[in-house]
Amino acid sequence: MSLTPVERAAHYATRSSRFAKAGPKHLAYFKSVLDQPCSVTQRKGKMLTEKAATAPYNIDWMSQIQGDTPAVLLPTCTKQVSAILRYCQEEKLAVVPQGGNTGLVYGAEPVFDELVLSTQLMSAPPVVSKDTMSVEAEAGVILQQCQEACAKAGMLFPLTMGSKGSAMIGGTVSTNAGGIHFARYGSMHANVLGLEVVTAKGDVLNMMSTLRKDNAGYDLKHLFIGSEGTLGVVTRSAIRLYQQPRSKQTAMFRLSNFESVLALYHLAQEHLAECLSAFEVMDGESLTTSPANQVPYKRTDKNDAFRAGSDFTAAYFCVLVETNGSSETHDFEKLSEFVESAQTRLGDQLSGGGAYEPILSQSAAQTAQLWELREGVPVHLASSGRIYKYDVSFPIDKFYCIVEHTREIVYKKHKVNPAEVLVVGYGHFGDGNVHLNVIDLTRSHAAELDAALYPGVYEFCAAHGGSISAEHGVGMQKRDYVHLSRTPETIRLMQDVKRMMDPNGILNPYKVLPLDT
Amino acid sequence: MSLTPVERAAHYATRSSRFAKAGPKHLAYFKSVLDQPCSVTQRKGKMLTEKAATAPYNIDWMSQIQGDTPAVLLPTCTKQVSAILRYCQEEKLAVVPQGGNTGLVYGAEPVFDELVLSTQLMSAPPVVSKDTMSVEAEAGVILQQCQEACAKAGMLFPLTMGSKGSAMIGGTVSTNAGGIHFARYGSMHANVLGLEVVTAKGDVLNMMSTLRKDNAGYDLKHLFIGSEGTLGVVTRSAIRLYQQPRSKQTAMFRLSNFESVLALYHLAQEHLAECLSAFEVMDGESLTTSPANQVPYKRTDKNDAFRAGSDFTAAYFCVLVETNGSSETHDFEKLSEFVESAQTRLGDQLSGGGAYEPILSQSAAQTAQLWELREGVPVHLASSGRIYKYDVSFPIDKFYCIVEHTREIVYKKHKVNPAEVLVVGYGHFGDGNVHLNVIDLTRSHAAELDAALYPGVYEFCAAHGGSISAEHGVGMQKRDYVHLSRTPETIRLMQDVKRMMDPNGILNPYKVLPLDT
Repeated sequence: MSLTPVERAAHYATRSSRFAKAGPKHLAYFKSVLDQPCSVTQRKGKMLTEKAATAPYNIDWMSQIQGDTPAVLLPTCTKQVSAILRYCQEEKLAVVPQGGNTGLVYGAEPVFDELVLSTQLMSAPPVVSKDTMSVEAEAGVILQQCQEACAKAGMLFPLTMGSKGSAMIGGTVSTNAGGIHFARYGSMHANVLGLEVVTAKGDVLNMMSTLRKDNAGYDLKHLFIGSEGTLGVVTRSAIRLYQQPRSKQTAMFRLSNFESVLALYHLAQEHLAECLSAFEVMDGESLTTSPANQVPYKRTDKNDAFRAGSDFTAAYFCVLVETNGSSETHDFEKLSEFVESAQTRLGDQLSGGGAYEPILSQSAAQTAQLWELREGVPVHLASSGRIYKYDVSFPIDKFYCIVEHTREIVYKKHKVNPAEVLVVGYGHFGDGNVHLNVIDLTRSHAAELDAALYPGVYEFCAAHGGSISAEHGVGMQKRDYVHLSRTPETIRLMQDVKRMMDPNGILNPYKVLPLDT
Repeated sequence: MSLTPVERAAHYATRSSRFAKAGPKHLAYFKSVLDQPCSVTQRKGKMLTEKAATAPYNIDWMSQIQGDTPAVLLPTCTKQVSAILRYCQEEKLAVVPQGGNTGLVYGAEPVFDELVLSTQLMSAPPVVSKDTMSVEAEAGVILQQCQEACAKAGMLFPLTMGSKGSAMIGGTVSTNAGGIHFARYGSMHANVLGLEVVTAKGDVLNMMSTLRKDNAGYDLKHLFIGSEGTLGVVTRSAIRLYQQPRSKQTAMFRLSNFESVLALYHLAQEHLAECLSAFEVMDGESLTTSPANQVPYKRTDKNDAFRAGSDFTAAYFCVLVETNGSSETHDFEKLSEFVESAQTRLGDQLSGGGAYEPILSQSAAQTAQLWELREGVPVHLASSGRIYKYDVSFPIDKFYCIVEHTREIVYKKHKVNPAEVLVVGYGHFGDGNVHLNVIDLTRSHAAELDAALYPGVYEFCAAHGGSISAEHGVGMQKRDYVHLSRTPETIRLMQDVKRMMDPNGILNPYKVLPLDT
């Protein structure tokens, strides 16, 4: 992914003069804090200052943002986090919290010389309770390890996503991560039962609990879910679990137009209802860079239509439907009835005159193959050229309009050759979450694409009831566009909350919040 | 329900001198605001000042708290709400927002001479969208009307509860109402997609949206969900809908001890998983005041054991299980398998040697009967004597311990005759939400019961990982006990948030927040 002009400007804007420079005195203090062993585990914290050691913490996952931190602090317990933040607040030292560093919006890296506070060493084995159907995990526990611990106890952790092998629980909570099963199990606001947070002033807020219902005063944990580490550092959380499904079924469909996708979605709600766990959509163009043997349907091409400027919708759509349930027989029956009903109702839009019959997976291997196709899409697209990635959301009936609009702007208004630049859309249809990707295959269209996409894409979202950020968050990348998705009054309250909770603005500066006007 | 000593003291404590008295000048201003017709509906607002007219707004649902408001303001649009609150903030006039006035914690009535701001006239027909699976409703829409509008479009509104005929949407959002289907569909934090709020300063925060995923900055709507109208007045909301189930099944069980209830719950999770929609528990004692022809099992009595001070658990437990799903055949099969498995695994604990076989409802009439039993419990208990009602929550394995503990305190420590005072427990087991009721059948034990229950019940919650308020909220009733369920640091932040958002403390004073220390 490339930095846009705005991102570049933001990145190279001046370091705020309100922050102190971390010097030997400060580092000595941090060392003394981290050298105190945790009272529970007896483990000491760590501090990294060598360039080689701090390098991976200084750069984002897509290698776009390069910070210059003087030190990475790796506490082992909440008490150390508290001492560090209290001191940073007093001494006006800027600090950026970091988990697995898998974010896509430049939210977890230093922009200039902020200290890095990594939760990596806070990773005691998660505690799974079958009785309360919940798991308690420290911030540094890796998502996949947490999922596995839950699965061992017959429980399902509600979140999963591509980065599960590196993403950490603290980060998934702080960013309100979404993923593939969001439509079924809901957001972190729905699933976090308890939270421990250290505020930007260094106060420990112990809101840990595994209770389902708890209306004793303001539910402040929601302030920290999705605020991307700008108000506090999540150190522990308790998350609601679900029964591990006994049965997983998948089916794939090829549809000739968007209206049929929408109709298929409504049929899925009707027939699959309580067991529907994913409804993923990929347009035909997003599959053009995937290996041919992965794509179960014959690919078709709309390049000529795009070039002619006559029609910007997709050549076709692939839909991946998954069910999770407690009875294989029932789920298979439901899925079969759903497929039959779809064939009756959608006719030729679905079957392409018999050429593209739906696929009902018959084996775990086939299911894995279908998911491989879906999960491979962003990977193959990214390796095909210089990529612009957008994570936006719309009311689902308008899911695809952003892709058509972008094609019109790129191919028609800016006259870019469709053979040289791909404009594709795929994503979590059930959540209205579309990933618009624009890939400069020849790496020669930076100027036209920058002009076509910024701030056009976000403005289109704002004008059509969409959000500039569906699941990735704001970070530094979208800070200057938040006003397109939030009213001035709402932004003012965000700023008031930030000022109250972090008077010196030391926690994750330059991120999320638009600058005060 | 009776006022406790603490509640009495709180109620008759001094009116805060920081508030102005509403005089003719103020009322004239309100009249001028309310006389401006709403730009959309052209409807004017109303102001009530006659004692007879304001009386129903001055008293709570249980006739315990009697306020003395000088005026009830009934705006018809958000703009009027904004003008009223801005003026109240400037003039230091205390104001209490009120919806259907069905709350149980004295949260929606004036304590002294606060103005009442009723959302009753903001009740345009709700807008249901099948495409986005959501409903948009003004604050004054009655819950049941909203449910019916959704059902007409084949959609299910996620919240239902006994007070649905009077409770209003704004109040259910402001109080994060729970109810019977909470375990299946989650809290208001999980289901509110968008919100419009007028803050205590009079700012309109338009956060309306039907998007499922929207991570564009702090998600401030959660501040207003469950803060019981102390930070702002909810004027509109968009709420997530679900597919209307095609099939509803119910079954009833009689179990001899609590361990079997817990085992049955885990079996239900295993066998019913995605279609389980309610798991309600009633102890045998809670059924003693219900009409005999409603109770499907022979009632048994533990009075002698209580009197002997030897054993304080229930005589037996009744469990009502409900499923909601998309296929009647599948759901009935699942429920039958669940019942069989329960019979095998729980044996005599379940069947009582064949005397108490589980009941699988065979008709809508039988289902209605079983629900009538459950819903009648609080009604029959309340009409049997002077009642103390508690709405608390525990980790589910500790669900019943509060009832046993209270019996021990009342019957053993305070030597109250179990024939004269009932101590019973029932509630939403899946949420760990137990309703402890103590009924003074002879209305002659006020002194012993006040001493036994306050603050003992809440302290027991705090000591056993429970919450002093599961779903009813805090209001004025539990304000002085919040510190038992929240840490000092967390309460301090609640107070900081309140001060920032409502500098003169005019919005719903004397409620929710413990007094500053």
